[in-house]
Amino acid sequence: MASRYYSRRDFLRSVGLGAGALAVLGRFSGLQAQAVQAAANKPNIIIIFADDLGYCDLGCFGHPTIRTPNLDRMAAEGMKLTQFYVAASVCTPSRAALLTGRLPIRSGMCSDSRRVLFPNSGGGLQDSEITIAEALKAKGYATCCVGKWHLGHLPQFLPTRHGFDEYFGIPYSNDMKPTPLMENETVIEEPADQTTLTKRYTDRAVRFIERNKNNPFFLYFPHTFPHVPLFASQKYKGTSLRGLFGDVVEELDWSVGEVMSALRKHGLGEKTFVFFTSDNGPWLIQHLRGGSAGLLREGKGSTWEGGMREPCIAWRPGVVPAGTINPGLSSTLDLLPTCLSLAGGELPRDRILDGIDMSSMLRGKGESQREMMFFYRGTRLMAVRKGPWKMHLITQPGYGDGPTKHDPPLLFHLEHDPSEQYDVTKDHPNVIADIMAEIEKHRATVKPVPSQLDIPLRAGAK
Amino acid sequence: MASRYYSRRDFLRSVGLGAGALAVLGRFSGLQAQAVQAAANKPNIIIIFADDLGYCDLGCFGHPTIRTPNLDRMAAEGMKLTQFYVAASVCTPSRAALLTGRLPIRSGMCSDSRRVLFPNSGGGLQDSEITIAEALKAKGYATCCVGKWHLGHLPQFLPTRHGFDEYFGIPYSNDMKPTPLMENETVIEEPADQTTLTKRYTDRAVRFIERNKNNPFFLYFPHTFPHVPLFASQKYKGTSLRGLFGDVVEELDWSVGEVMSALRKHGLGEKTFVFFTSDNGPWLIQHLRGGSAGLLREGKGSTWEGGMREPCIAWRPGVVPAGTINPGLSSTLDLLPTCLSLAGGELPRDRILDGIDMSSMLRGKGESQREMMFFYRGTRLMAVRKGPWKMHLITQPGYGDGPTKHDPPLLFHLEHDPSEQYDVTKDHPNVIADIMAEIEKHRATVKPVPSQLDIPLRAGAK
Repeated sequence: MASRYYSRRDFLRSVGLGAGALAVLGRFSGLQAQAVQAAANKPNIIIIFADDLGYCDLGCFGHPTIRTPNLDRMAAEGMKLTQFYVAASVCTPSRAALLTGRLPIRSGMCSDSRRVLFPNSGGGLQDSEITIAEALKAKGYATCCVGKWHLGHLPQFLPTRHGFDEYFGIPYSNDMKPTPLMENETVIEEPADQTTLTKRYTDRAVRFIERNKNNPFFLYFPHTFPHVPLFASQKYKGTSLRGLFGDVVEELDWSVGEVMSALRKHGLGEKTFVFFTSDNGPWLIQHLRGGSAGLLREGKGSTWEGGMREPCIAWRPGVVPAGTINPGLSSTLDLLPTCLSLAGGELPRDRILDGIDMSSMLRGKGESQREMMFFYRGTRLMAVRKGPWKMHLITQPGYGDGPTKHDPPLLFHLEHDPSEQYDVTKDHPNVIADIMAEIEKHRATVKPVPSQLDIPLRAGAK
Repeated sequence: MASRYYSRRDFLRSVGLGAGALAVLGRFSGLQAQAVQAAANKPNIIIIFADDLGYCDLGCFGHPTIRTPNLDRMAAEGMKLTQFYVAASVCTPSRAALLTGRLPIRSGMCSDSRRVLFPNSGGGLQDSEITIAEALKAKGYATCCVGKWHLGHLPQFLPTRHGFDEYFGIPYSNDMKPTPLMENETVIEEPADQTTLTKRYTDRAVRFIERNKNNPFFLYFPHTFPHVPLFASQKYKGTSLRGLFGDVVEELDWSVGEVMSALRKHGLGEKTFVFFTSDNGPWLIQHLRGGSAGLLREGKGSTWEGGMREPCIAWRPGVVPAGTINPGLSSTLDLLPTCLSLAGGELPRDRILDGIDMSSMLRGKGESQREMMFFYRGTRLMAVRKGPWKMHLITQPGYGDGPTKHDPPLLFHLEHDPSEQYDVTKDHPNVIADIMAEIEKHRATVKPVPSQLDIPLRAGAK
C-alpha cells in the first residue's frame, strides 16, 4: 500500500490554495481562477456509483436478462476491470473509502455496532479528511455531487463541506425515513419522490457537464438505486425481462447513456475519464429485489467476494484501450491517487493513504501495482488478499448468522477459484505465514480513531 | 415445436440427390456438381462446439480470469445468446440433438442406464437420422467434422457415414480408453497425443476452410476440451491466471481466433455464419478441473439451468447485428432448421423435428419463435420451460444423489430468477396447469424407440 506523509496544510498550499481558500467553496476567487487556468489540459473525471449492484447484474458482466446497452458500449469502448474491490461491503464505509482513498478504519467511518449512518446518527466524514472533490477543486476543477451521499446528513458533513461546489440528492439510503431530497444544504422535497430520482439526477448531471464543458470538472454521481425500495420511472416500470430490479438497473443504464451522450455531443469524450462501479455487492436477503453476484460467493454485508468485488468499467476514448478486460487487482481506494495523478496533483503526505495510482494500468501501459487488499467488517479485519491468494481469518454471511473464526485460516486461490469453494490452507503454509506477516505490518499502521457511526444525534440537531 | 412430415427419400430428392448419391459421400459426382453450382450464393456454416464449458467460462460471459479475446471479439462483432439451451446435459445425447434437430428421445440416443456411449458400446446414430451435414451436403456443401464425435465408434456410425466428406478426431470422450485419433475411418494414432489435439484440429479446420474458399462449406468443429483430463500444448500450459482449466480454454479461444483469421484472410467473413457453444454445462464434481456456470444452478448431468444453458455466440458480419445480446429462447435443436433455412433447403417431413428456424432472430429481424424447451435426463422428462417459466417435475444433481419428485412441481420465473432460487408454484396455478397440458401434447408425439446407448459391443467388433 502507498503511504506518503504530507500535511493537509502543505497539500492545500502545494496545489495553490491556502486552507482558507478551500473554506469558500462554491464561490469564485482569484486563487481559483489561477487554478482553472493551470487545469486547462486536465481531463474531466466522472465517477458513477451504483448502490447494491452485484458483480453479475450487467449484460457485459454476464447477466442473461438485464439489458444494459449503454454500459455494454462503455465496456466495449473501454476497459472492464474484473478484480476490482470496494473497501467495505456496506454503504457508508464504502463511500468514505472511495472519496478519501483510505480504509474506513482510519477515518472512523465504520463501527461494529452500527454498520452505516442513520437519520438518528450525529457523526459524519470529518473535515480533516481530504476528498477527491477537495483535491480536484484545488486543482481548478468544477465539482458536483449528484445522488446519495451517506457520509453524514448534518450540515457540517454535507458534500458542500467536502469540496463539492454543488449537491443534489438524498443524504442517506432510500429506505431510511424521511428520505429528504436536498439541493446544496437545503431540503427541497420530503419525502423525495423516488420514482423520478434517477431522471432528475441525470438531468442535473447533464446540466453540470454542459455548464462546464469549457473547464475541467469532476462529477461524482452516486445513484440511489438499485438499493431497495426499488423505484423506476413510469417509462421504465414493467419494461425489463428481469422484473422491477431489472427496470431499475435498465433506467440506471439509460442514465449512463445520457451522460455519455452529453460528453459526445460536446466533444468531451477524449477529455473525460469515466468510471462506473457500485458501492457493494447485491443485497441477497431481499431475494429478487436484490441483485446477483454471479459466480462470486455471498453478497452485500459480507467479506466473501460477492460482498466486495464489483463490476467496474473505465472509459476514455483514445487513452483507455477499447474492448479490454483487465484482471488487475484494483479498488475504489485507488480512485483518489488516480484522479490526482490524472489532474497533476501531489498526494497529501500527512496521512496514510491506502490507494495506489492505477492510471498507467488504465492506459494499458502496465500492470496493477496493487498487491494487497484488506477486507474489513466494521473495525474487524476479516480477510486479506495478497496476489491471487485470499486468506479468511473470520467468515460471516452478510446478514443473519454470526461470525466463524478460522484457526488455521481459510485460504483460496481467487484466480483459480473465484467462487471461494476449495480451501487450500494445508497445501500452502508459506502463503499463510507470509500473509500473517503482512497483517502484522498492516495493523501497525492502524491507529484507533473514534467511530463516527456510533455518535448519536444531539437533541435539536437535524 | 415445429413438426413437419416429409420422407427421407422425398427430402433427398427435393434437394437434387437420390438416396444413392448420398451413399457415395466424399466423391465428386455430376449430381454434386449441379448442387455446388446451385449453392454458389449460400453462406458457409461453421459450428464450433466446446465440451463441458460452463455458462460463465468466457470473458464475454463474465469469467474474471479466463481471457478469451477471440471469442470476446466474436461476441462484439456478433450476437451473444443468453438463453440458449442444449437438449441434454451430457455429451452423446446433446451431440445427437444438435446434428439432427431432434430430441434424443426420438433418435434413441439416450438411456437411463448408460448416459453416454462408451468404448464397449455397440450402438450409435442411426442411418435413418438426417444430420445437418447430410442436409447441407445435399445442397452442395463441402462438409467436414474435426474433433470429438461420440455418436458411435463402429464404422457404420462414423461422421463419414453421416454426411461428412472428411473426419479428423477422436470417436468418444478423452477420458475413455484407448482414445484413438482417427482420420476418416482409420485409426492413425492410439492413444492420441492429447497435448497437441487442439493445435492439430485447428490446422485441419483451417486447411478445410482454405481448400473450400470458393464453394460453400459446412465445418462442424466439436473440440475435445475442456473435458477432463485437461491437456494444453506447451505453448499454453501454465500461462493462464485460471490454472490448467484456463490454459485449455484459452487455447480453445486461440483456435477460434485461427478459424476467424482464416475467414478474414480469404474474404469469407460476410459469407460465413459461425456459431459457438458447448455441449453441456461444467463438470462440477471435477472441482477446479471443471468450469463454472456462474449465476446458474448446478452443472453437467443436471436439468437445472447450469447443466443445459450454454454460452452461445453467433457471428456473420453485415448480417448478424454487431454487439448485440439476445435473450431469445433458442437451442442447438434449432441449428438444423436454421442451417437449412440459410442454405435454402426444405425440412424433412417424415419425422418430428424439435428445432425451429432462428435465422430471422440471428439477423436481428424478429424475436425467437421458440416458446418451449423440454429438459430430459435419459428418457425421463424432468422439467419444461414455457416462455419465462420453468417447471420441474423431478430434480436431481448432475452426479451423486438420486432424483426428487415434486408434486406439486417446482416453478421458477427464469427471466426474473435465472438462478432457480425462488419457487413460485403456489402463486401460479394457471401456469402449472398450462405446462401440464403442454406436457400431455408433447408426450403424445414421443414414440418409444430402442436405446442405442444400451447396445453392447458384439464380440469381435471394434
